[in-house]
Amino acid sequence: MYLVKVYVTYKESILDPKGEAVNDALHRLGYTNVDSVELGKYFEIKIKPDKRPIEAEVDEMCDRLLANVNMETYRYEISQMEAL
Amino acid sequence: MYLVKVYVTYKESILDPKGEAVNDALHRLGYTNVDSVELGKYFEIKIKPDKRPIEAEVDEMCDRLLANVNMETYRYEISQMEAL
Repeated sequence: MYLVKVYVTYKESILDPKGEAVNDALHRLGYTNVDSVELGKYFEIKIKPDKRPIEAEVDEMCDRLLANVNMETYRYEISQMEAL
Repeated sequence: MYLVKVYVTYKESILDPKGEAVNDALHRLGYTNVDSVELGKYFEIKIKPDKRPIEAEVDEMCDRLLANVNMETYRYEISQMEAL
């Protein structure tokens, strides 16, 4: 079994109003040394080995469903889980 | 400047309906070897150095705002950014 961690964030050119809101809230709580906040999505996906390479499958899953590639960018880490 | 990456996920005992929905959607798209999906939040925070230790500040920010510690758990990575 693979454990895949996918991180989806907005592209540089896209406004991130939720991240701005968190930034403002942190400032109001007194964390005035916070410079910027970006808010993204984080997926932990367990995948059973298949015939096709895992990287190709994860790339396709990200492009088709997990990220909106017009506005978002993604990266991922794949690790092998211990069999129990 | 520090770059802090914070990952917030539901605790084991808490239902994750959004993760379930993504899991179902992946199955419908043909990725039937996907075993489970958990959906969490991902923050990238830039913080200027302060008098207090960065770890103490990030712990407090997570407990007070970024995570709902009744339902969620968090972990973070802190790295030093290059001065430009």
